[in-house]
Amino acid sequence: MSKGKVCLAYSGGLDTSIILAWLLEQGYEVIAFLANIGQEEDFEAAEKKALAIGASKFVCVDVKKEFVEKVLFPAVQVNAVYEDVYLLGTALARPVITKAQIDVAEQEGCFAVSHGCTGKGNDQIRFELGFYALKPDVQVIAPWRDPVFFNRFKGRQDLLEYAALKNIPVTQTKSKPWSTDENLAHISYEAGILEDPDTTPPKDMWKLIKNIEDTPNTPETLTIEFSQGLPTKLINVTTGQIFTDPTEIFLNAGYLGRKHGVGRIDIVENRYINLKSRGCYEQAPLTILRTAHVSLEGLTLDKEVRHLRDQFVTPTYAKLLYNGAYFSPECEYIRSMIKPSQTTVNGQVRLQLFKGNVIILGRSSETENLYDATESSMDELTGFSPEDTTGFIAIQAIRVKKYGLAKKEKKEDLDL
Amino acid sequence: MSKGKVCLAYSGGLDTSIILAWLLEQGYEVIAFLANIGQEEDFEAAEKKALAIGASKFVCVDVKKEFVEKVLFPAVQVNAVYEDVYLLGTALARPVITKAQIDVAEQEGCFAVSHGCTGKGNDQIRFELGFYALKPDVQVIAPWRDPVFFNRFKGRQDLLEYAALKNIPVTQTKSKPWSTDENLAHISYEAGILEDPDTTPPKDMWKLIKNIEDTPNTPETLTIEFSQGLPTKLINVTTGQIFTDPTEIFLNAGYLGRKHGVGRIDIVENRYINLKSRGCYEQAPLTILRTAHVSLEGLTLDKEVRHLRDQFVTPTYAKLLYNGAYFSPECEYIRSMIKPSQTTVNGQVRLQLFKGNVIILGRSSETENLYDATESSMDELTGFSPEDTTGFIAIQAIRVKKYGLAKKEKKEDLDL
Amino acid sequence: MSKGKVCLAYSGGLDTSIILAWLLEQGYEVIAFLANIGQEEDFEAAEKKALAIGASKFVCVDVKKEFVEKVLFPAVQVNAVYEDVYLLGTALARPVITKAQIDVAEQEGCFAVSHGCTGKGNDQIRFELGFYALKPDVQVIAPWRDPVFFNRFKGRQDLLEYAALKNIPVTQTKSKPWSTDENLAHISYEAGILEDPDTTPPKDMWKLIKNIEDTPNTPETLTIEFSQGLPTKLINVTTGQIFTDPTEIFLNAGYLGRKHGVGRIDIVENRYINLKSRGCYEQAPLTILRTAHVSLEGLTLDKEVRHLRDQFVTPTYAKLLYNGAYFSPECEYIRSMIKPSQTTVNGQVRLQLFKGNVIILGRSSETENLYDATESSMDELTGFSPEDTTGFIAIQAIRVKKYGLAKKEKKEDLDL
Amino acid sequence: MSKGKVCLAYSGGLDTSIILAWLLEQGYEVIAFLANIGQEEDFEAAEKKALAIGASKFVCVDVKKEFVEKVLFPAVQVNAVYEDVYLLGTALARPVITKAQIDVAEQEGCFAVSHGCTGKGNDQIRFELGFYALKPDVQVIAPWRDPVFFNRFKGRQDLLEYAALKNIPVTQTKSKPWSTDENLAHISYEAGILEDPDTTPPKDMWKLIKNIEDTPNTPETLTIEFSQGLPTKLINVTTGQIFTDPTEIFLNAGYLGRKHGVGRIDIVENRYINLKSRGCYEQAPLTILRTAHVSLEGLTLDKEVRHLRDQFVTPTYAKLLYNGAYFSPECEYIRSMIKPSQTTVNGQVRLQLFKGNVIILGRSSETENLYDATESSMDELTGFSPEDTTGFIAIQAIRVKKYGLAKKEKKEDLDL
Repeated sequence: MSKGKVCLAYSGGLDTSIILAWLLEQGYEVIAFLANIGQEEDFEAAEKKALAIGASKFVCVDVKKEFVEKVLFPAVQVNAVYEDVYLLGTALARPVITKAQIDVAEQEGCFAVSHGCTGKGNDQIRFELGFYALKPDVQVIAPWRDPVFFNRFKGRQDLLEYAALKNIPVTQTKSKPWSTDENLAHISYEAGILEDPDTTPPKDMWKLIKNIEDTPNTPETLTIEFSQGLPTKLINVTTGQIFTDPTEIFLNAGYLGRKHGVGRIDIVENRYINLKSRGCYEQAPLTILRTAHVSLEGLTLDKEVRHLRDQFVTPTYAKLLYNGAYFSPECEYIRSMIKPSQTTVNGQVRLQLFKGNVIILGRSSETENLYDATESSMDELTGFSPEDTTGFIAIQAIRVKKYGLAKKEKKEDLDL
Repeated sequence: MSKGKVCLAYSGGLDTSIILAWLLEQGYEVIAFLANIGQEEDFEAAEKKALAIGASKFVCVDVKKEFVEKVLFPAVQVNAVYEDVYLLGTALARPVITKAQIDVAEQEGCFAVSHGCTGKGNDQIRFELGFYALKPDVQVIAPWRDPVFFNRFKGRQDLLEYAALKNIPVTQTKSKPWSTDENLAHISYEAGILEDPDTTPPKDMWKLIKNIEDTPNTPETLTIEFSQGLPTKLINVTTGQIFTDPTEIFLNAGYLGRKHGVGRIDIVENRYINLKSRGCYEQAPLTILRTAHVSLEGLTLDKEVRHLRDQFVTPTYAKLLYNGAYFSPECEYIRSMIKPSQTTVNGQVRLQLFKGNVIILGRSSETENLYDATESSMDELTGFSPEDTTGFIAIQAIRVKKYGLAKKEKKEDLDL
Repeated sequence: MSKGKVCLAYSGGLDTSIILAWLLEQGYEVIAFLANIGQEEDFEAAEKKALAIGASKFVCVDVKKEFVEKVLFPAVQVNAVYEDVYLLGTALARPVITKAQIDVAEQEGCFAVSHGCTGKGNDQIRFELGFYALKPDVQVIAPWRDPVFFNRFKGRQDLLEYAALKNIPVTQTKSKPWSTDENLAHISYEAGILEDPDTTPPKDMWKLIKNIEDTPNTPETLTIEFSQGLPTKLINVTTGQIFTDPTEIFLNAGYLGRKHGVGRIDIVENRYINLKSRGCYEQAPLTILRTAHVSLEGLTLDKEVRHLRDQFVTPTYAKLLYNGAYFSPECEYIRSMIKPSQTTVNGQVRLQLFKGNVIILGRSSETENLYDATESSMDELTGFSPEDTTGFIAIQAIRVKKYGLAKKEKKEDLDL
Repeated sequence: MSKGKVCLAYSGGLDTSIILAWLLEQGYEVIAFLANIGQEEDFEAAEKKALAIGASKFVCVDVKKEFVEKVLFPAVQVNAVYEDVYLLGTALARPVITKAQIDVAEQEGCFAVSHGCTGKGNDQIRFELGFYALKPDVQVIAPWRDPVFFNRFKGRQDLLEYAALKNIPVTQTKSKPWSTDENLAHISYEAGILEDPDTTPPKDMWKLIKNIEDTPNTPETLTIEFSQGLPTKLINVTTGQIFTDPTEIFLNAGYLGRKHGVGRIDIVENRYINLKSRGCYEQAPLTILRTAHVSLEGLTLDKEVRHLRDQFVTPTYAKLLYNGAYFSPECEYIRSMIKPSQTTVNGQVRLQLFKGNVIILGRSSETENLYDATESSMDELTGFSPEDTTGFIAIQAIRVKKYGLAKKEKKEDLDL
């Protein structure tokens, strides 16, 4: 008799196939779940394989639209970035997949969910905190943290032997010496040879974005329109193509960025569980949209609103996303701070993609008035009294004069 | 009889020449001061001109070394950046010039200092707050904020007429339709045609950094060594050249960056006096050194130290610099937080310059142990118990489960 | 012929009476405006006096309800406090008065507004920034910053002589050697003898709150109920009285606090214009309501939401209020962060007022579940696996072990 | 044969006596360690008992001086406070005890340390993170998180039976229905009947601080001197006593505070492990010293230094201490920020203790000049040009005018 139904995040790969077979062996009934989040994947083959191994059902959910509209776009609005350069491509996908998996678990009457994440990474946390928030009574089966499992499967050889035993077909292609995770926003590379942080990734590792030497020798010009900080139109000025559907905007920004070599990074980052980790990422569409958004904010966002948002909301949101706290009280709170910051972020940015660079050509706004060329002009005084600045400086000077005087009185040097 | 000695920041250009003549006309004796901070300038011609107009003395001070060692290097250590992209090239130069000018004013017995900054910009504040801190009893003469002056000189024509009257030689070259400010870290372009934020700067405006289409088709490889976060060696792997003197390191990073198109930006920024301003900057050496430094911090800096520093010290320091508060109690306080964050930032970064990109090839450290490839490895469990992560997640899950339960009890939807 | 209508914030006191007469002398028509914000004041006498001096009209607006509901209550929700102890009683009143004055100015067709604030204080900024936001084309007449005015009225004697000249009645009571500003939330004392920060205020200065030795020898017990962080009921358990109207709740908290000696402070604070200032405040109702609110948040607010709000929203809001930026983009932004933090702050707090102390007796919530006595119990393990904490600690220990090891390797001492 | 030496934090109470016996039973040799941190305790009885049970050795270390000078005083300098009111009395003691215990463990050749903390509290984390930092190879034995132990000792009855079996003497006094932790800075009460957050603590629970009704009817006046933010002299003006030794200052502040009813709080706080917890604390000396210190900072600390320190350093340090991260890279970093903020905090504060209140009477500084009564005076203009404020306001008004204009253009209401 079944010990109950488990909804397993199934990828079709060796690890989750083994886990599927092992869960069955433990006496569970298994629903195999797979999210289509824009990765390159043979979904039919995965379905066939899951059912062949013994899954009761295979459910594939297309979450691309939710991913773009509910998660990626707010990340663009808030300029989310972790540790200076990582645009959170993997982290942003997790809440979408988690929600879809829990929905399937609920629909299928599963008491538990399972996944193939390792015990050292961020993803286990991202998935599981989401599971617990969305379905507080759920059981989580994490084989790679279960000694029964990980002591049995100590290396690839153990997995292969078990696969043979269970008649699980194994792809003959030699596995790459690194791991990847892909979705429509990015692809990540980590582990294997990348674990030496001084090893330069081989050119043929990079899958999505062209090497700079292979990119076109002429730039391509885009205009990106934003309404309340959300991309609403992408115009390829070079080709005349226009995109207005959010997912189309996102996909085409990605397509163009990849073509022009935009968006590769190579970092050592700090995982939530206090280990450092080397990761390489290709994040073309987020790079382009974020750069354009930041540029438009320069023109249309009030200085203090921007500085306060930059100081607090952006880094906090990024850290919460990275740490897997999307479904949490604090993330709901911080998320509520994104939209009110964006009411004036309306206008368009013109830019060029060329040889890995996103080059700003100009920006404009029909509706916002924070920038006033006459007022800002160095050549005119219309609407501005220079004497005001004298007063402004005098008030600021009160403290620095006291500071200078105190230094003199205490015979302390005031130097660079 | 003289109304006293004034130390004027003199550039040799039209504006400060007019101011020099005008100060003399007002009855002051004038010491002309010029700082060599790495800009392209004919210092001898400036001296000749100042003396010809009537300055009692011309003092030129070479501040390049102080600029690099005391101001630029700490900015690299703290990854200083304003509004996402501006590396503060002009702002960083100001304290160095201010200090040198006050030193000259003190040596020459001047009761006042003067400058040619406009009344709408940041520089007037940066200079004057520095003046008041370094010499609290100093008088500041800011002609462009003095109605007597600015009502007399309403346009270029007035300046030219006065120049003719006073026999001040005027360069015949047609002036560029923008203003620039240059030092060894960067050059800025603003005003004139750039005041329309949607006008793309003409290709021939950019003076220091090559257009990407004109850069070499082969990358150049560097290794940059850091000790306690300070660049100590720059190795041009391609040519075999090695630089260890701080100024040499900085200048060569600049030379290479310019050659490979690295470091141009075009922004609308928020000035301290609450006007928005469009600025274009070429900031090659800071771009390269900052990118390398950030990369090494990934490997060698503790996660929490980095996050705390990023959250508070970096943006606060950048804002203080931008706002001209270098010589202030709060900036002294924040500056004291840079060095303690850098004790472990020791090692080297390998990178390539290519077509506007700074590409990280790898990083390593002989002395620091925060990254441990074995421990971080996805393939091994040495020194790590995956069950620990279960506990870690369970503790984090306490709050999110309550959050999910409360949502259910209140029949509120928990969705993306 | 009139130079136009000016709406003057008129208090009935000597200064604003002089200003009223002086404005008339300058050729303006003057509308005298007075806000009833809960201060002790003879409004009729003020009206009579204003009209006698020559005001065209006297308009008194009762803003107590708006003050409590729109400004004081959100301040309670966010626990607003400036420099550790000042609950912002004066600062909070300013936006309410400003709005009412501009409304009157608009209704009466005034092109300008005027006030009697000195040139060294915070209030001038608070009023004027509000004026400019609410009516960007307004003219502001600030006599105490106008050399024509302040050079004419150099001391009290000049004011008295002008009053005599203009037949302005002057109260014969000797003026107190300090200034006060009062509203229903508090009273402030500053200037005069208080300008020596080491002078203890005389006992008879304090007007609203009883000296502790004069308070009752038995405590009084209250229950305060909150809904979404807003006080909704105040029960005087000792007397059986119940208040549910916001203004009534506020006034009665004030009445009880004053009776029991609650809410006096004496500080040297930092004014926005960079001067330090000694102020004494009596802030009974805000002290009680804020203390109760903080206590309830302990029980009902998620830890991370609280910490993030405390770190950023509370101090930023307090500083913006203090600096007079209520009507600004950044304050609108920060204000939008208050309500989303308060959805779970529902329940009641029991407390005692006694001899200057607000003593918490207990707190409870029918609807919120964040505190679970069983789960938190030190005596039980229900619903909690102690092994989880082992994992939690182990993950946290990863970094500190590396830290300790590095210290040992570098032979650095790790000591207190 | 012994499994090795363990250094056990031993209190003489039932729990740690049982643990001592159990460790012996498991085959360990045990060194009993007890820190004298100012708690009321019969150290001799504890020694006798430990040896009777079977400890090889009993080591008691007096850490009062280190506690005051190295940990409590910096906490006063930084005004440390957690969640608005908790002055961290327990948390601050932990690093001192941890360091002493590791020192003993090293001296005695122990491979492991052990403690009697429960699995739900903060203390286990505070001790263990310290252990791991100070001695990264140490083994930690935490019986209350070890199923072998906690499944055997499920309730007090099991402990008593084991005590009888092992001849461990049990005090006959009925145990109080709450737990306490005491040191010279404070005492905490939690658990037992306090776990209902709406239960008012019985009057006779409070051990150190007098009930307000039992305090003297006349105030007592103190002067506290600070040098660089550190208390250097406590003068009891009423009695004439003077204390200059740090520990004496601290103890006498405590003695006087307790006498006058100063320093009780009752809160629900957020533990590090994400449980809420009700705690009552008596924290007399920290309350007095912190209040005095904050007051002196008003007079002597630069505005911006204070605000930056308040915004970042104080809350971060408090949270790190609370969470047990004293010995960590980030805490070392934050701790380095305390001293540089205090260079000007020199002077004295006069205050009264009366009926639970700390009443500031005045403050002064011979050496610092940030407050200037003349300059701040509302009655004089010496050294201040009111027109400067006009310019200051005008510059600030630029943004708010644009904000008001945009609201009007967009027909949005700008209201309270």
